[in-house]
Amino acid sequence: MPRVEIYDTTLRDGNQGEGISLSAKDKVKIALRLDELGFHYIEGGWPGSNPKDLRFFELIREHQLKNAHICAFGSTRKSGVAADRDENLQQIIRSNVQVATIFGKTWDFHVRHALLTTLEDNLQMIEESVAYLKQQGMEVFYDAEHFFDGFAANPEYSLATLQAAEKGGAARIILCDTNGGRLPNEIFDMVSAVKESLDVPLGVHCHNDGELAVANSLAAVQAGAIQVQGTINGYGERCGNANLCSIIPNLAFKCQLPSIPEQSLAELTELSRFVSELANMHPMNNQPYVGGSAFAHKAGVHVNALLKNPHTYEHVEPEMVGNRRRVLVSDQSGLSNLLYKYQELDLGLGLDKEANRRLLEELKELENQGYQFEGAEGSFELRLRKAFHGYQEPFSLENLKILIEVRDGTVYSEAIIKINVNGQVVHTAAEGNGPVNALDNALRKALEGFYPEISGMQLNDYKVRVLDEKDGTGAVVRVLVETGDGHCSWGTVGVSPNIIEASWEALVDSIAYGLLRQENKDDIDTQKIITGVFRGKC
Amino acid sequence: MPRVEIYDTTLRDGNQGEGISLSAKDKVKIALRLDELGFHYIEGGWPGSNPKDLRFFELIREHQLKNAHICAFGSTRKSGVAADRDENLQQIIRSNVQVATIFGKTWDFHVRHALLTTLEDNLQMIEESVAYLKQQGMEVFYDAEHFFDGFAANPEYSLATLQAAEKGGAARIILCDTNGGRLPNEIFDMVSAVKESLDVPLGVHCHNDGELAVANSLAAVQAGAIQVQGTINGYGERCGNANLCSIIPNLAFKCQLPSIPEQSLAELTELSRFVSELANMHPMNNQPYVGGSAFAHKAGVHVNALLKNPHTYEHVEPEMVGNRRRVLVSDQSGLSNLLYKYQELDLGLGLDKEANRRLLEELKELENQGYQFEGAEGSFELRLRKAFHGYQEPFSLENLKILIEVRDGTVYSEAIIKINVNGQVVHTAAEGNGPVNALDNALRKALEGFYPEISGMQLNDYKVRVLDEKDGTGAVVRVLVETGDGHCSWGTVGVSPNIIEASWEALVDSIAYGLLRQENKDDIDTQKIITGVFRGKC
Repeated sequence: MPRVEIYDTTLRDGNQGEGISLSAKDKVKIALRLDELGFHYIEGGWPGSNPKDLRFFELIREHQLKNAHICAFGSTRKSGVAADRDENLQQIIRSNVQVATIFGKTWDFHVRHALLTTLEDNLQMIEESVAYLKQQGMEVFYDAEHFFDGFAANPEYSLATLQAAEKGGAARIILCDTNGGRLPNEIFDMVSAVKESLDVPLGVHCHNDGELAVANSLAAVQAGAIQVQGTINGYGERCGNANLCSIIPNLAFKCQLPSIPEQSLAELTELSRFVSELANMHPMNNQPYVGGSAFAHKAGVHVNALLKNPHTYEHVEPEMVGNRRRVLVSDQSGLSNLLYKYQELDLGLGLDKEANRRLLEELKELENQGYQFEGAEGSFELRLRKAFHGYQEPFSLENLKILIEVRDGTVYSEAIIKINVNGQVVHTAAEGNGPVNALDNALRKALEGFYPEISGMQLNDYKVRVLDEKDGTGAVVRVLVETGDGHCSWGTVGVSPNIIEASWEALVDSIAYGLLRQENKDDIDTQKIITGVFRGKC
Repeated sequence: MPRVEIYDTTLRDGNQGEGISLSAKDKVKIALRLDELGFHYIEGGWPGSNPKDLRFFELIREHQLKNAHICAFGSTRKSGVAADRDENLQQIIRSNVQVATIFGKTWDFHVRHALLTTLEDNLQMIEESVAYLKQQGMEVFYDAEHFFDGFAANPEYSLATLQAAEKGGAARIILCDTNGGRLPNEIFDMVSAVKESLDVPLGVHCHNDGELAVANSLAAVQAGAIQVQGTINGYGERCGNANLCSIIPNLAFKCQLPSIPEQSLAELTELSRFVSELANMHPMNNQPYVGGSAFAHKAGVHVNALLKNPHTYEHVEPEMVGNRRRVLVSDQSGLSNLLYKYQELDLGLGLDKEANRRLLEELKELENQGYQFEGAEGSFELRLRKAFHGYQEPFSLENLKILIEVRDGTVYSEAIIKINVNGQVVHTAAEGNGPVNALDNALRKALEGFYPEISGMQLNDYKVRVLDEKDGTGAVVRVLVETGDGHCSWGTVGVSPNIIEASWEALVDSIAYGLLRQENKDDIDTQKIITGVFRGKC
């Protein structure tokens, strides 16, 4: 069976998403990762539009790709300018890649209102631009911008634009739902109609403004498109582009249509998080297939059935996309969830009914105060160990003082701590860029002599959430800290109206839990499971 | 044309989402809002499963609803227990509402592996449970759990379960894609098949595990279902439920199928944010129709066309769902975006080319340092006013000191500030729950004599983002503050490696901008537009 071609436009269209700004180097890292996983086409950017994109094409040339073709994006030539004199087309040629993807106008409304030219002139612009780039030895993909809206408004003219691209020698014609407002049945019907009128293989490029981009992409494939364009995590302008992290597994597991190699599917979760880290976007927990909650179960009745057979409440196995099952403990969860947790952690916990009920009550009360153990399973496990095994923290706080001073525009932060480590009192101080950093530095300084392995642990993420917004800066805050040791990462939590106290609590748990992991290092399977927030490989 | 019935299950299924825990009072607030907007059915909870849900049914009885019917959720009776002795069914009756929604097993695999009974016994459980609740005077909706998986595996048996519910007297049969893994074309075909075999009107209940819940719900309606079940913002277990905030406008604008009254559609954006605030979930920026980015434009070429005609890059008008258009300024944006901003803010800014270029450079440099003006348009406007109108802040900092001390387990936070207000030096101090609160209190104390209107401004949200995670607690942090005055809210930003300094910067901007708004209070249209993060009505 022929493979569906996957065309990634994270580096261009994805980068248009609000809050996203990838550097040229980030783009290279992502391109290399996509290449490794067997993506077929990677759109690097629009060389004519900004220097960052130009730089990407320079940098990527230094690498030998194994699978992917890099594509340069641009538009058809300007009206009234010959193709060989059009600056935008020249930039595409200078980018020195094999594939050019150029977009043109398909919708008569756009030709008149955005391009401000005649319908006939637009047809010539399309045909000549495609033909010119092809003459220069490039493979040319033609992006029919607003195709579906254009076809609905004026089917004859929009078909004529596609025929112009075909006549020019386009290797693929990509039908775009640029404004993202079309329905799957419309997409299916229109792709089917185009397929009857053209010989060029078709692709599809959808946006998510109706929350239908994944369905629309699948409908186009079902109607005969052989290429799907989209982005990792669905990043993109407005509501984003079609999400390849959902489309690829849907094609493989639901439509039995292969695209990237089968073994790459198990890397999708890691790919999603890798790209979200480079894009500096928080991972979307509820993202299908690859999200942290995608296989997280909370309802007691579901967990009960899962204990009997996971297939009961999961559409695919989480491992197929490199994700994992999680069971949440919350005030809505019953004893089933707690028992599942015991099994998972393999701590050899007793099944004493009364003790379980007490622990569940305690956890519910803590959640009531604002604690959240979802995503802070390091703190959760420490509590279990305290309750059942009499676990004690490796140190305790006696005294803490923090000074912050702004003097003549310069800020000084200093932390003074007095802690007790196995009966020995350590009194020390450290400076930092800020109070939490000073605190972290002082704590590490005090402990390093006792636990040298601390130097291998680093803070990956630090989140603060105001819990009752109505109380303004006086509200209770929850601090979630994520710490890593280069292989695994774990989440811990602290809650207080004082951000320093909440941070202290989460930092102490993060180090205590990290030390505990070191002790049990050989037990690698358990390690994998207990990782609160699973990032990368563990 | 008959209206599509909207059945909201935010209060039950939505509440299963990771990180969501609605109180009984929150649930009442949401139910009343949904009722006002004309939702047809509101599932209040599962009275048999937890005390919070029981409490909801007590509280909601005190209110007279205008449009909606409240539904109580539960399961078919237990195997081997008579319906009139089944505790779960008794709880539904005691909830004292008009509609009972009970789920039963449709998939033979589940009957055997989760229910652990015979196929025949399950049919009796369904029929008798429905019939019993109907005898008690309730309208009964039957949720066919895992219908689509069950029908694919064993069409005869799954149809037999539906026929048992019909025989029992169900008023609606709801076909559920419980595991969320089905494709739109499958849903269409299966709903069509069921419609031929049954007389009872059908509904659909989808989950989003394949990112297809919205498409699947529409496909079911296109095949003849008259009721759609879903949640606000798509909240729900794992990847969530079908998102009513997308389905309702898709039905209205794309399928020409009315559901809730037309005038309620313009309230959807506010509804979405109202529910996300009560659920304490950060609004999803890229959410279709109602998200803060849903009509946000970044690409220079798009903005250029929008200036000519907004229809060029928007599938619907933002006002139709109560949202608004935004143009973003970023390092990828050209002069078009900046010019659009000038127009929008109506500050009477000059079009001096050189000044514009300098400002664009400055903004790009600030974004490079970690500033983000998307969502902090208060800080953005202050910068524009400084650059063009010589605006000066109403006060300046001379000195700042913060002390935090943990003594015998108690935390003390104190801020000492010296500021200059119009030439007068104020030196004062305040305590707080935490350092940022102490700072906020001291600042307000110092300024209140000069600007009494400050007491009407409150901090709504306070977010901290670690920018370069690799630097741990020493990394640069970005603080985003959202401040409100009861009508509008505005976002401001501060960036520094020191969380106190970044907070100070954002707090100063928030007050400075709030004072500026007060000055221009009569100019209400501008106020509406310049609000950085638009929450609620303004």
